[in-house]
Amino acid sequence: MMTPINPDQLLSALRWRYATKRFDTAHKISAGHWDALEQSLVLTPSSFGLQPWKFLVVRDPALRARLQPESWNQPQVTEASHFVVLTAKTDLSSADIEAWIARMEEAQGKTAGELAPLKGMIAGFAETMSCEARHAWNVRQVYIALGQLMTSAALLGIDACPMEGISTGAYDRILGLEGSGYATAVACALGYRAADDKYAHIPKARYERAAIVRDV
Amino acid sequence: MMTPINPDQLLSALRWRYATKRFDTAHKISAGHWDALEQSLVLTPSSFGLQPWKFLVVRDPALRARLQPESWNQPQVTEASHFVVLTAKTDLSSADIEAWIARMEEAQGKTAGELAPLKGMIAGFAETMSCEARHAWNVRQVYIALGQLMTSAALLGIDACPMEGISTGAYDRILGLEGSGYATAVACALGYRAADDKYAHIPKARYERAAIVRDV
Repeated sequence: MMTPINPDQLLSALRWRYATKRFDTAHKISAGHWDALEQSLVLTPSSFGLQPWKFLVVRDPALRARLQPESWNQPQVTEASHFVVLTAKTDLSSADIEAWIARMEEAQGKTAGELAPLKGMIAGFAETMSCEARHAWNVRQVYIALGQLMTSAALLGIDACPMEGISTGAYDRILGLEGSGYATAVACALGYRAADDKYAHIPKARYERAAIVRDV
Repeated sequence: MMTPINPDQLLSALRWRYATKRFDTAHKISAGHWDALEQSLVLTPSSFGLQPWKFLVVRDPALRARLQPESWNQPQVTEASHFVVLTAKTDLSSADIEAWIARMEEAQGKTAGELAPLKGMIAGFAETMSCEARHAWNVRQVYIALGQLMTSAALLGIDACPMEGISTGAYDRILGLEGSGYATAVACALGYRAADDKYAHIPKARYERAAIVRDV
């Protein structure tokens, strides 16, 4: 059974979070909490359910040290408890679609015949796009995962910093992604804020709701 | 003060959610819960904090009826309690950057001088891209908002259906967005599942964690 939280709990977590710059290097995310964050990635919704992604958890300190200069030298890369590189498939092939249909057959006890219309629809949708457009589509799905990851972390009381300011080409090279069919889209550092991270105390700046939400 | 939830609460909500196809038309999201979901949109993190978006809450039933045929005739458009169209800025102009810097000055009590380096960095980043690339960048930020919105809804016990299968050009025309500097990126229906939505009982299909999460 699912017990919903109340709006105040949600909003207090969303207001508590911020793009953490300095992490407490001594404070690691527990195995149980990290497991939940990985599950939040696995459970992320995606278009047609295709999950066109792979998430690399960079645990090797030497690798993280090599990624840092490709990340505007930001300290989060090496100081955060965990560092995830979110990658997207560079294309969506018919093999990818077949793999997904096979997974649905297995997980949902459906037959290939029952899923044939869905398979045709996905293939038809993918065919209307260039390879570049399919890659861009996949990257957008990865950003849903980034959103779900950051929101989940905040609810669990875990700090995070989304990182777009990275050299994705260098990341691909360092992580051995070249030619793998996956490419770096964005990264996210996770852990617990350092006591002296001055960004923790800057008021959150957002546009007024009336400026960005409109009833029509 | 922020009281974190525990991993089980998070995961039970993420497992409970699914892309809802049939909503209970009699069950509306309360004002308090809807307010929290709008706040979750407002609080969404974005690159440099730029918030390159506008969220349209389509309340007019006649408008929703016109959007439905542009959405593969999916019933969620008219049956869900609330229907949000997430739009992205079609460019990122120097005026957009100045507006953001002005907002930071106001919200954070900073001076233009203090923020000049940040302003220069954002402008430099934006200049490396074509207008199309800036639009695509903005759309990716909108997908963070989509992720935060869906995760927030699940935690509150509210059902949602992300909708990419829409004719964004027709949406722009119907919603009067043409020439506005904003374009439809994606939509999301929110409300409560109908008792007879057969999709509620299909097992969730995801790839095994080992297939998509990798320690490196």
